[in-house]
Amino acid sequence: MTEQHKPAVSVLGLGAMGTALAEALLAAGHPTTVWNRTPARTDPLVAKGAARAADVGEAVSASRLVLVCLLDHPSVHSALDPAADRLRGRALVNLTSGTPAQAEELATWASCHGADFLDGGIMAVPPMIGKPGAFVLYSGSRDAFDAYRGTLDVLADSRYLGTEPGRAALYDTALLSGMYGMFMGILHALALVTADGTAAGEFAPMLREWLDAMSGFATSAAEQIDRADYALGVVSSLAMQATGFDEFLDVARERGVSPELLAPLGPLLRRRVADGHGHEDITGVIELLRTGSAG
Amino acid sequence: MTEQHKPAVSVLGLGAMGTALAEALLAAGHPTTVWNRTPARTDPLVAKGAARAADVGEAVSASRLVLVCLLDHPSVHSALDPAADRLRGRALVNLTSGTPAQAEELATWASCHGADFLDGGIMAVPPMIGKPGAFVLYSGSRDAFDAYRGTLDVLADSRYLGTEPGRAALYDTALLSGMYGMFMGILHALALVTADGTAAGEFAPMLREWLDAMSGFATSAAEQIDRADYALGVVSSLAMQATGFDEFLDVARERGVSPELLAPLGPLLRRRVADGHGHEDITGVIELLRTGSAG
Repeated sequence: MTEQHKPAVSVLGLGAMGTALAEALLAAGHPTTVWNRTPARTDPLVAKGAARAADVGEAVSASRLVLVCLLDHPSVHSALDPAADRLRGRALVNLTSGTPAQAEELATWASCHGADFLDGGIMAVPPMIGKPGAFVLYSGSRDAFDAYRGTLDVLADSRYLGTEPGRAALYDTALLSGMYGMFMGILHALALVTADGTAAGEFAPMLREWLDAMSGFATSAAEQIDRADYALGVVSSLAMQATGFDEFLDVARERGVSPELLAPLGPLLRRRVADGHGHEDITGVIELLRTGSAG
Repeated sequence: MTEQHKPAVSVLGLGAMGTALAEALLAAGHPTTVWNRTPARTDPLVAKGAARAADVGEAVSASRLVLVCLLDHPSVHSALDPAADRLRGRALVNLTSGTPAQAEELATWASCHGADFLDGGIMAVPPMIGKPGAFVLYSGSRDAFDAYRGTLDVLADSRYLGTEPGRAALYDTALLSGMYGMFMGILHALALVTADGTAAGEFAPMLREWLDAMSGFATSAAEQIDRADYALGVVSSLAMQATGFDEFLDVARERGVSPELLAPLGPLLRRRVADGHGHEDITGVIELLRTGSAG
């Protein structure tokens, strides 16, 4: 194909995210067909040049690349199942939030219907789509990724994680889980400094700077885990950190702030010290998170 | 004073941090007197040009600027109390880790003995002292900070937070608490991706990049708190996030990873939704952390 003929794309599901995806594709000049269970949602996109599909079958038939961005996994099946016989030879890209197990199930289902399948995890909120900074994790069919990467890059920076269909959902979940841990720390810290009426805005830039400076723990901890050596490069021992951590929670209590968001780390630090790991880094706590039922 | 005559400094306490402080001062050409309860710790510094004080009284008398970096608050009193009558007219800078209440107590005590007092919170580990990236929070005497800022900057970037003596310890505690929240998220995320034997090192750079991109929550949440408007600029509603969050913890359980580090956020999200705040951002959770006993 030439630059004049950009691949046609169908977008199923026009919530805030699906709409942002369709808008980015239209803005980049891709022939775009849209479908939504509530048809009124298609109107603004049709006004911008999108074609409206009367049903999912029509939407799937309109393009060789089909993006699905619905509420959840059951919505994907209830939309696609009736149109399954139209999928053969197309690339199905699922951008609906879901679990690794759901992505694996959908990959098998798509394969049975002759479609190339990619699962995607969008690491952005809708206003970031089509702008720098957003990225989407993909896993599944390498052929589909290679064939449509240029189109997918219109949405956000595309990162391919391999053929295992569940990997994008796993990384997506892990990144968001990590983010919630950071948010819990931020909420605790802001509650602490504002407990006496101090403005949060005075403290927040310093907190952000500090978190950015300390995020390198992700890479140093990963090296310790991969080498199975929790003492590697330790600068602040688990034993010292366990003592300090308890004191931080006491300061919160003194100021009338519940330490409940951070509290669960304390017992894990103490267990590791009791088990003889006081000289190591705190990374070894992950041993206590592994409950042993993993597949 | 001229550039040839840098202020003399006494350093009390030669643990890893106190030693790093003394080394940075010596390297910058400050006449430095050192004291440690176990005298052998002074030897390497004396070899680098430090003067050894036989006792705390001698150490305090040797310099108008006295830095204290001991194990904890009781250690500070047990070291300084016998030499209290030597403190008059000097600047006492306490860099021992402690709580806001301890800093306030020490400020009053120092004032009673005629010393200018600064409490400091070192936001660095010992190897970072004297290098770019480290900073120290100070609060207490403005006169002492202004008089010795040039010397304090030898240790790390100096940030003055006002005359309230406990503020540096409060900010220090809040920054470290925020960091532990981030570490909890990182540990959970790394446990999740490594549960099937995948190397952590493949995932860690992406996690770090994502956390850096999302640390802006500190500033947006602070604005929502200061304006008492938790719906300000919301892009992902509390109700949606509450649903997604539960799913993330289910993925962890499925993979044999205990969700205990992140679990406490779930009930708080659900309570806020039940209380009618589902359309807002998650920041309003801090209302539930305020237990009402704050001073």
